[in-house]
Amino acid sequence: MNGTFEQFDSEMERRGLDTALVIGESTLGNPELAYVAGTTIPRGGIFIKRRRFDPILVVSNIDVGNAKRGRVSEVRTYSDYDYENLVQRYGRERAYVILVDLILRRVRSRGRVGVYGHTEFSRLLSTVDSLRRLGHKVAGEKDASLIESLRGTKDPLEISRIRSVGSRASRVVEQTQRMLGDCVVRSGKLMSKGKTLTVGMVKSRINTLLAEQDLIAPEGTVFAVGAGSADPHEMGHPFDAIKAGVPIVFDLFPVGAEGYWFDLTRTFVVGKAPRKVKDMFDAVLEVQLRSIDSIQENIPASKVMNFACDLFERRGFKTIRAMLKGDRNAARVGFIHSLGHGVGLTIGERPYLSLFSDDTLRKNQVVTVEPGLYKPRIGGVRIEDTVLLKGRRVENLTPLEKELEI
Amino acid sequence: MNGTFEQFDSEMERRGLDTALVIGESTLGNPELAYVAGTTIPRGGIFIKRRRFDPILVVSNIDVGNAKRGRVSEVRTYSDYDYENLVQRYGRERAYVILVDLILRRVRSRGRVGVYGHTEFSRLLSTVDSLRRLGHKVAGEKDASLIESLRGTKDPLEISRIRSVGSRASRVVEQTQRMLGDCVVRSGKLMSKGKTLTVGMVKSRINTLLAEQDLIAPEGTVFAVGAGSADPHEMGHPFDAIKAGVPIVFDLFPVGAEGYWFDLTRTFVVGKAPRKVKDMFDAVLEVQLRSIDSIQENIPASKVMNFACDLFERRGFKTIRAMLKGDRNAARVGFIHSLGHGVGLTIGERPYLSLFSDDTLRKNQVVTVEPGLYKPRIGGVRIEDTVLLKGRRVENLTPLEKELEI
Repeated sequence: MNGTFEQFDSEMERRGLDTALVIGESTLGNPELAYVAGTTIPRGGIFIKRRRFDPILVVSNIDVGNAKRGRVSEVRTYSDYDYENLVQRYGRERAYVILVDLILRRVRSRGRVGVYGHTEFSRLLSTVDSLRRLGHKVAGEKDASLIESLRGTKDPLEISRIRSVGSRASRVVEQTQRMLGDCVVRSGKLMSKGKTLTVGMVKSRINTLLAEQDLIAPEGTVFAVGAGSADPHEMGHPFDAIKAGVPIVFDLFPVGAEGYWFDLTRTFVVGKAPRKVKDMFDAVLEVQLRSIDSIQENIPASKVMNFACDLFERRGFKTIRAMLKGDRNAARVGFIHSLGHGVGLTIGERPYLSLFSDDTLRKNQVVTVEPGLYKPRIGGVRIEDTVLLKGRRVENLTPLEKELEI
Repeated sequence: MNGTFEQFDSEMERRGLDTALVIGESTLGNPELAYVAGTTIPRGGIFIKRRRFDPILVVSNIDVGNAKRGRVSEVRTYSDYDYENLVQRYGRERAYVILVDLILRRVRSRGRVGVYGHTEFSRLLSTVDSLRRLGHKVAGEKDASLIESLRGTKDPLEISRIRSVGSRASRVVEQTQRMLGDCVVRSGKLMSKGKTLTVGMVKSRINTLLAEQDLIAPEGTVFAVGAGSADPHEMGHPFDAIKAGVPIVFDLFPVGAEGYWFDLTRTFVVGKAPRKVKDMFDAVLEVQLRSIDSIQENIPASKVMNFACDLFERRGFKTIRAMLKGDRNAARVGFIHSLGHGVGLTIGERPYLSLFSDDTLRKNQVVTVEPGLYKPRIGGVRIEDTVLLKGRRVENLTPLEKELEI
């Protein structure tokens, strides 16, 4: 907690910021507000922090209880600023500007003000333009913003939440694989209660298993069967039959009630795997394990990506680096995406384990490591764990086997 | 489709806007982009429309297929603007400004530009400040923004999506009620497989039932039992036992895969309802039915709210109007919230059926009608349907019984 706000101060200092405002109608879909509040606030609010001062969180009366469960000790309500009367007197628009101006003046904000949060742009721009006219020096921020940088490393509470989602997600994958393993195979297709099992049926089952673990997958689930899995963005067609003897790429990215995500992928074959798929699997698994071993703090994130490319290329597989040298085929064959990304209040955030990443790895970051190989007409193989950077080593947060054949 | 963009033009005209830009990293959590795209685009994009011209949607290569399923016929990719090279040459920040400037100049934008979407504020503000320096007249907008106004009425595709979520959500409520009705009651508590049934167990079951209907409830579910239900914001405590003979307020607000929400509430008693609860229920049901009957296009939304208050007050119940006259008790007893709100790509949007609403009801709006009565130590009764405004009458999109005792 305190540690977070110390880091807040040094990041604000580095950016020349006097005051940070985080705004939103809800913490849902608003990772910035969820992060600074440290809890869910259904109706959102206004977080304000001056450099070297304790933050304040302003919420509606109804949400005081929710807000107090978070990391900001000083929780106030709109009523403390007489907001209801302001609305009656000046209308909603002007009242909101007066409210934010009041919040800024009460903490004696001077100097640059950063304004953060996922919220409707045109309306907050109107408020910010008014604040500027009142003399507040509101400045936009370039990538990465203050809050995005802070979100890059996780505190113990965040880690425990991610860990919990990870172990529940792993159970869902196990249960799904067990269900598939129990199916009868007829003419190369998996059968369930006398019917051909389809991707749609499996996804519906996955959603039920997720619900039983108090998880949801608002962005869907990748369950790509056979040659279709050669496209890493293929989600899987609902009416496709589940076939034996072909690769199935199962990429699950659920979120828990507190807003923390997890990301894991397993590739498997029901029955016997073809030679080519087995070769791809062995290569991907080796690259994944060695990449995970190579991760440590204070190295460039791009170094891990390049290391993975080195290993694939040494084994004779193409990588995305070949595309940069003009090999257009390398956009479709081989290791054609980045190695990983941060996970937390979003499913994709800093640090990025990619070729041109400007991130440096740091302790308490949580990242995916997900090498893959793709071959048109054969399919894809991707293996993904989410791991926690502990310094000179990582802890794998994904308690799940990696077996090709089930 | 076309109708939508015609309305777009007249709304732009009314606001003196030459160009509208809608921006976002995803359509998830971004109702503005989801609305103009008319489909889900996992990696988001940039929508641009000049007044009286067809819109263009710019997305990443990967999302072209997704984008083409939507309502914009002209889909382009970042590559069409040479974005990858711009990033390599100028870095991500400057390249993005150049990209948006290029998109604006290619459509010959002149005059006022509105920028919309739920996206991280500080970073888009930085881009917008750069665009302003390049001469683009970007203006913020006051409540309601262009897109928010347009979203107020629904087209046939949107209505069919909301209708579908509504019928599936209704089934989940039925199944939950049936499950509760099948329980044995021991010492006033419902038992399931020999154990006391708790709110947590019921919510877990509800989540599973939602998953079976391909729905999720990212904002949770209200399942408030007994006296706790006297607070309309009480979500229900996981460890509370489900009791017979007390009111249970079950407010379900799920969302489907296409991003459309639904909102419905039933209040019921397992076993015999106390006299006081029955009186409250009868009043709420009468007010709900008569309020629904009173809805028609071209009347102020506040009129329906006032009508509901009239009915409650005539029956001797307090309403939130008493609070305005200084009765502080009226914040906790009686009809203490608004009558309803719009539903669509968000769970709460225009029009608002509230005392000070400035909305006028229009055809093809979808609104909730949810009167309630609350009494400390007794509990609450709320009945909520989501209905479609068809002109001089409404169609109820909530195929679900209203029985007090189950």
